[in-house]
Amino acid sequence: HRPMSLIGGMNVIESRDLVMRVAEAFVQATGELSLPYIFKASFDKANRSSIHSFRGPGLDEGLKVLQEVKQTFGVPVLTDVHEISQAAPVAEVCDILQVPAFLARQTDLIAAVAATDAVINVKKPQFMSPPQIQNLVGKIRECGNEKILLCERGTCFGYDNLVVDMLGLRTMKDCSDDAPIIFDVTHALQTRAAGAAVSGGRRGQIAELGRAGLAVGIAGLFLEAHPDPDQALCDGPSALPLDLIKPFLTQMKAVDDLVKSLPALVID
Amino acid sequence: HRPMSLIGGMNVIESRDLVMRVAEAFVQATGELSLPYIFKASFDKANRSSIHSFRGPGLDEGLKVLQEVKQTFGVPVLTDVHEISQAAPVAEVCDILQVPAFLARQTDLIAAVAATDAVINVKKPQFMSPPQIQNLVGKIRECGNEKILLCERGTCFGYDNLVVDMLGLRTMKDCSDDAPIIFDVTHALQTRAAGAAVSGGRRGQIAELGRAGLAVGIAGLFLEAHPDPDQALCDGPSALPLDLIKPFLTQMKAVDDLVKSLPALVID
Amino acid sequence: HRPMSLIGGMNVIESRDLVMRVAEAFVQATGELSLPYIFKASFDKANRSSIHSFRGPGLDEGLKVLQEVKQTFGVPVLTDVHEISQAAPVAEVCDILQVPAFLARQTDLIAAVAATDAVINVKKPQFMSPPQIQNLVGKIRECGNEKILLCERGTCFGYDNLVVDMLGLRTMKDCSDDAPIIFDVTHALQTRAAGAAVSGGRRGQIAELGRAGLAVGIAGLFLEAHPDPDQALCDGPSALPLDLIKPFLTQMKAVDDLVKSLPALVID
Amino acid sequence: HRPMSLIGGMNVIESRDLVMRVAEAFVQATGELSLPYIFKASFDKANRSSIHSFRGPGLDEGLKVLQEVKQTFGVPVLTDVHEISQAAPVAEVCDILQVPAFLARQTDLIAAVAATDAVINVKKPQFMSPPQIQNLVGKIRECGNEKILLCERGTCFGYDNLVVDMLGLRTMKDCSDDAPIIFDVTHALQTRAAGAAVSGGRRGQIAELGRAGLAVGIAGLFLEAHPDPDQALCDGPSALPLDLIKPFLTQMKAVDDLVKSLPALVID
Repeated sequence: HRPMSLIGGMNVIESRDLVMRVAEAFVQATGELSLPYIFKASFDKANRSSIHSFRGPGLDEGLKVLQEVKQTFGVPVLTDVHEISQAAPVAEVCDILQVPAFLARQTDLIAAVAATDAVINVKKPQFMSPPQIQNLVGKIRECGNEKILLCERGTCFGYDNLVVDMLGLRTMKDCSDDAPIIFDVTHALQTRAAGAAVSGGRRGQIAELGRAGLAVGIAGLFLEAHPDPDQALCDGPSALPLDLIKPFLTQMKAVDDLVKSLPALVID
Repeated sequence: HRPMSLIGGMNVIESRDLVMRVAEAFVQATGELSLPYIFKASFDKANRSSIHSFRGPGLDEGLKVLQEVKQTFGVPVLTDVHEISQAAPVAEVCDILQVPAFLARQTDLIAAVAATDAVINVKKPQFMSPPQIQNLVGKIRECGNEKILLCERGTCFGYDNLVVDMLGLRTMKDCSDDAPIIFDVTHALQTRAAGAAVSGGRRGQIAELGRAGLAVGIAGLFLEAHPDPDQALCDGPSALPLDLIKPFLTQMKAVDDLVKSLPALVID
Repeated sequence: HRPMSLIGGMNVIESRDLVMRVAEAFVQATGELSLPYIFKASFDKANRSSIHSFRGPGLDEGLKVLQEVKQTFGVPVLTDVHEISQAAPVAEVCDILQVPAFLARQTDLIAAVAATDAVINVKKPQFMSPPQIQNLVGKIRECGNEKILLCERGTCFGYDNLVVDMLGLRTMKDCSDDAPIIFDVTHALQTRAAGAAVSGGRRGQIAELGRAGLAVGIAGLFLEAHPDPDQALCDGPSALPLDLIKPFLTQMKAVDDLVKSLPALVID
Repeated sequence: HRPMSLIGGMNVIESRDLVMRVAEAFVQATGELSLPYIFKASFDKANRSSIHSFRGPGLDEGLKVLQEVKQTFGVPVLTDVHEISQAAPVAEVCDILQVPAFLARQTDLIAAVAATDAVINVKKPQFMSPPQIQNLVGKIRECGNEKILLCERGTCFGYDNLVVDMLGLRTMKDCSDDAPIIFDVTHALQTRAAGAAVSGGRRGQIAELGRAGLAVGIAGLFLEAHPDPDQALCDGPSALPLDLIKPFLTQMKAVDDLVKSLPALVID
């Protein structure tokens, strides 16, 4: 069994300096814990609830920052794409291209991303059942790309709330012919007050939810952090405080190590 | 009170001839019933579950067909757009531009559609609570377009099923400062067998669900029909057989007329 | 087609005088509208969220009041039972025995109620799918009672919220071999603030939800009213103000009359 | 931190011999693993979906069997009660009285159970939000009993499916003033085919779901096993094969030990 990978970083590129600071913290912690690590940050939050919310620096500026992370720290980087035209330029810098949940069924975007030959991280839409992942993965494979990560980030549960169906993780794996399953513990913490212009979150419960996901036995974790979550420009209520990365990941790795050391319990 | 409008047509442009046949049937029925009518068909099904499914003729060919409908029958036409670049050319032909549910939070697409000065029909995403419509409508208005229709098409209810929350229709109206509410009775019939590559539907229940929606008191209905639903290239299980348009709409109009003749029952 | 029946009254017997006042208002309104009418009130709210909430006068006192309603107004009466031992004495007074939603799968209670030879009104549990009604009805029939009413009162939708699946009404009818379907529009309005000791409600939307349910085409409506809902001892937020019974029922009857006059739209 | 307790046994008392066999297997495995252990079996399945399903030996015969388990193996025993009159006699034999999920809001049953001075294990209803546990626990405490266990067994998720909201476990603990949280991993595996007379289950996923629950950090696990699940008279599809108790519990204990050794990660 391979140890858990970590896709970690910050929600949106707030500034070059903040990105470097976040990346450094992740690089240091994952280095000390010997966890394979990929940096993540978005250059554009293209689907904010409110038009007044911060979106990010955009493609060109964002890619420069991601390139600097890559060169400075020698780690692979991931970002999400929202338009067909973004796939190729993003793939020149990024090792993993992420398809946002809302866009995961847009065939042309999937095709454009698949054509880059980068690894693809698909966020499972909150409106999609685990077995439907089969069609989603089928699309990518038909486009000739087999390097697929599947990312769970919670499923709609009534209004303005998400729930993680732990039983769905294996279904995703089984119906995708064994694609690695990543658990986005940050997004899964989201909730929203009725009518609110921005999402709320339950970051105080990140450790217990993260442990639960890793206890199932998965390939990796997806995590967003911020030096001051209350001041974050997007999704702060779900973000891990930066100074807790090391103790948080220590817990996650311990659960992952344990679970992967256990013999399989095969039940007919 | 204004009588219900009908946005009706077929799911996807299967051929020019079929579109003309469907449009003729709708024009005739709505004419006889004196219902304001807008023709609807998609030129591209950009988010089919399976990559092997039929998508449609594409933008150029599709717009020609829609233009022919408009000229032949003298009715406004509606289609949905999936890319920013499609907004302007579509608006040269179509009177109403539709934003698909999955894309309803993509800010740039909303902005491009709003900039056309066409009427915008936004499908409420199945993952969005009714009060969240406030942010969605706010985006469009910030972009300078006030001609907004809001279309209910069902909300995620567990896996692979939709439910129409009849209480949400007024919430949508109230939180949008009185945007007209349209009920997509066709899409709301969708369901899906676990793991299936295509959606199923409950077209046998279209009359009762349509009556329920109109009984709430709304601006209009959205309806897809097909001469032979079992042979339809998309969403046949939810489509109304073409020869039932008239008796179906007769029922809908009767409910709409009645409900709009009733005095409001104001309860504190 | 038979016109809609009304099961109407108040949530819990707050006092003899109040019951008589409520019953009189219902008798008068349904008489003027020629609606078959059954009076409803509970003698015990046996499952209040909080132990501090008002429960009612209890079995003996409650039956006296129901008996007085029956004699004074000459209408059949309904109440709900919670214990096996209550079935027989309640059936001496009441024409319809109601099985509460939470208790609808308690086999011995079902058997006791079925043995009385009264009509049985089963509230569909908020945790039960429509097709499961088949097992529930099967239990009652095995106990030798065929006089079954099935009452929809909303289904769990996320936390602390209910949704009425209008498509489920026909499923309930089909899988019960045509039991009459009653729609409890009052209970379906319930919602609850997180952690609250009592339910909230959306009585301001009762007319639109009631019209929607009747527009499907059902046997009857279940309705609770109160002279002053804000002072009601149970479920006031969902109750109809007593002085609106007539205008409310006028709307409901109009929808019911219309829908039952429409020809069936049979779709393969 | 105290190690996890196990409430384990079989769904329903199928026979005295089978109960003794199941109890012996649990006693041996939990002894070898040094896990505090309570035997569980039901004497009556009072709410089977179908009236034709096996219910069990009844109160008198069932208590004799439970008494024999207690004496033979020297372990505490638990069973569930469904009627007020059962509370006292059951408490003469059983150390823990369980309130079934459907009955958890029946005030009189709660009062009767609380009056016995036994420990009470309350199954959280699948229709109840975690914060509502506050009212439920409040009822029991008002009745003078503070020895409360709260048991999660899944929440309604659409029709005929359950989901375990791992974030709810802490909510239950917080809003109950720190009642021990038990996770019924067996029941949480239930699902049901539309219209089926009996529940299905996902016992093949019991290890991953059990690990996830324990990884959150809880007081104990609730588990049903059977020598031959396919022949079990109730809920076999969710039961653990008897010969897997030891390897299964070994995994659970390993996760529990690890999680309880980790320092708390307090996030504001």
